[in-house]
Amino acid sequence: MRAEIIATGSELLTGRTVDTNSLFLADGLLDLGIETAFKSVVGDDEKDMEEVFRRALDRAEVIVITGGLGPTEDDITRKVLARMLKKRLVLNEKALKAIKDVFAARNREYPASNDRQALIPSGGRVLANPVGIAPGFFLIEEGRFIAVLPGVPQEMRTMFSESLRHELAAHCRSEVFIHRKVLHTWGIAESKVNEQLEDILKKGKPVMGLTARETGVDISILAKEGSRDRALTLADRTETEVRKRLGDAVYGMDSQAMEEVVGALLRHRKLTLSAAESCTGGLISSRITNTPGSSDYFERAVVTYSNASKTELLGVPAELIAAHGAVSREVAAAMATGIRERAKTSLGIAITGIAGPGGGTAEKPVGLVYLALATAEGVSVEERRFLGDRDQIRQRTAQAALDMVRRHLIA
Amino acid sequence: MRAEIIATGSELLTGRTVDTNSLFLADGLLDLGIETAFKSVVGDDEKDMEEVFRRALDRAEVIVITGGLGPTEDDITRKVLARMLKKRLVLNEKALKAIKDVFAARNREYPASNDRQALIPSGGRVLANPVGIAPGFFLIEEGRFIAVLPGVPQEMRTMFSESLRHELAAHCRSEVFIHRKVLHTWGIAESKVNEQLEDILKKGKPVMGLTARETGVDISILAKEGSRDRALTLADRTETEVRKRLGDAVYGMDSQAMEEVVGALLRHRKLTLSAAESCTGGLISSRITNTPGSSDYFERAVVTYSNASKTELLGVPAELIAAHGAVSREVAAAMATGIRERAKTSLGIAITGIAGPGGGTAEKPVGLVYLALATAEGVSVEERRFLGDRDQIRQRTAQAALDMVRRHLIA
Repeated sequence: MRAEIIATGSELLTGRTVDTNSLFLADGLLDLGIETAFKSVVGDDEKDMEEVFRRALDRAEVIVITGGLGPTEDDITRKVLARMLKKRLVLNEKALKAIKDVFAARNREYPASNDRQALIPSGGRVLANPVGIAPGFFLIEEGRFIAVLPGVPQEMRTMFSESLRHELAAHCRSEVFIHRKVLHTWGIAESKVNEQLEDILKKGKPVMGLTARETGVDISILAKEGSRDRALTLADRTETEVRKRLGDAVYGMDSQAMEEVVGALLRHRKLTLSAAESCTGGLISSRITNTPGSSDYFERAVVTYSNASKTELLGVPAELIAAHGAVSREVAAAMATGIRERAKTSLGIAITGIAGPGGGTAEKPVGLVYLALATAEGVSVEERRFLGDRDQIRQRTAQAALDMVRRHLIA
Repeated sequence: MRAEIIATGSELLTGRTVDTNSLFLADGLLDLGIETAFKSVVGDDEKDMEEVFRRALDRAEVIVITGGLGPTEDDITRKVLARMLKKRLVLNEKALKAIKDVFAARNREYPASNDRQALIPSGGRVLANPVGIAPGFFLIEEGRFIAVLPGVPQEMRTMFSESLRHELAAHCRSEVFIHRKVLHTWGIAESKVNEQLEDILKKGKPVMGLTARETGVDISILAKEGSRDRALTLADRTETEVRKRLGDAVYGMDSQAMEEVVGALLRHRKLTLSAAESCTGGLISSRITNTPGSSDYFERAVVTYSNASKTELLGVPAELIAAHGAVSREVAAAMATGIRERAKTSLGIAITGIAGPGGGTAEKPVGLVYLALATAEGVSVEERRFLGDRDQIRQRTAQAALDMVRRHLIA
């Protein structure tokens, strides 16, 4: 079965907004054995939208449309779709009640213009929106499965995972079973991964792909087989082989982020962590605390942007900073020891570096970063030189710091 | 004139690759007065690709295709396009020489398979690739301008800016000049914005759009006029009117993020800021420090996840926490006062709340957040109840906290 994903909204055409929804949806569809053959983006124009919807009906069996379900004049998706399918829009009482409940829960006045969000093409079934206002809906028309979800990413994701996914699975019952895994690596170049996996990559079965990201090189494994078991076995066997060749460089799989891996290791080993950040400015801490339950192992962090704060909050001697500079091996080590002792945690991670664009010198260029990890056994420091702009340097530094904790925990 | 941008490549359909090329191209086209009406993504499949190309010829006057110009078997763009237009592929000697020169300059052996990259549909004109190998080309067919560029972002961008742009400008000689602005708001619901701007939104001139994001509601203004001056004037006049109606809710414009606005205000007023974060876990700090030069006004932050850290790092009395709970108006106020005094900054912002999914009670549900701002005049506290998942609650809280600082600074 082939799908077309359609994103609606003029803001997706005028240049600033990336359509990330379609990545998530293509992923989710693939898990159900549905391959995405086309993606389209169209603005809030009735004629253009109708043309795109009509085309999708010609060439895909599953059509997922996002956006244009809000309460305003330019939210025309439901209207255009209903007209094209020659259906009336019907006020869905259940959906209306859910919308009104959201306003009541927020103690906010209910503007009548929101009524239109409860309009559903006749024959359509409502998809509840547990994290927002606009409900979605789906309908099956001449064997085509047509679903409409809001454009707000979080709402779209939740609704796909909690309801649409199950409706699609029931409708599609594919003959082809697809199993996919994505292995995440850090600390190994794409060309090196390519070299180490060359024979596997060339085989074509499973379909393999490499993607370089700020968080490292991702390796995707896509096994398409005639049975679920065979697809699973092929993907598992390939995963095992890749892990064998790349070793510790593989830090996680699928949706696992580095901070989740580190969190699980800390929890399992009943250890705690604290952080002292300079150039990453809270990024490491905000990543760690993005994981629910992180308060069990994460005690505190300090963002010591000024020299005074390094001395006051971490006990880094002012003379040490004066002698070596704030961005130095020595200061990184003192920061890590300082946060670990003051927070009374098992581990303390510290970062000092130059994120740029200003502040670099010939000796200490933009991208120079020191990472330090203090443990009961002492403190270790790594020097890194990252390329890229300010944001890239900060992102890569945060990833490297989390990886340093991970490697210590699995050692 | 209307454009369609087509990205080819199966990795854009199955993988995790975002198509950022089309953002750049839509921007570049708009500057030439060409509006992008459609964007399409299609895989490396001859039939699908031909269908998408054919559709584009029906509905757009300018078609820009990216990807599929490489030397491998699955690079089929030129072949499919030539066949559809009933043109022969002709070996372009100039292009071939340029390709061979790249290999020579890199001292690399020339694989004959690269010859095919010099094949151009007859009647097409070559677009040189100064930063890579595969040349692009364009042709004008029944008044349609069709351009093909490589998919590698850097090559695509350079070729658009250095050659395609000029060819398009010469071909299109637009009678229409476009000026665009996007205003960012926070703290006002989309339905409310719609209500306040209803007459402007309905006028259709300029073209207006509303988009709800985690960072608030964005209002886009697109002025299309017969002269550059008239487009500018219309956009400016509309911006002024929107700002008049929405007042302080408008916090920024175009690429400006809230943290940049706050940073500029702090810098202008020669004030400094520190932060004490609990449930946001470093997010506010990492946003502030994402702006280059933020060390001029941002002194430090503490992420006080544990009660002990609130007492040790901020001087929040343990009894106060015991009496009111860590998530309370009183503790938020004490955190803000504590960080401001210890960091010796003009302002101190503090957050305490329940990001979930666990930890909520009937009295203090998930999403309950206290924001406190300490200044020389005293401390003010706001209570908020945010909906959404952990990530949304954290994102919205960070935005609300930055906005609280902003409102104080413009008061």
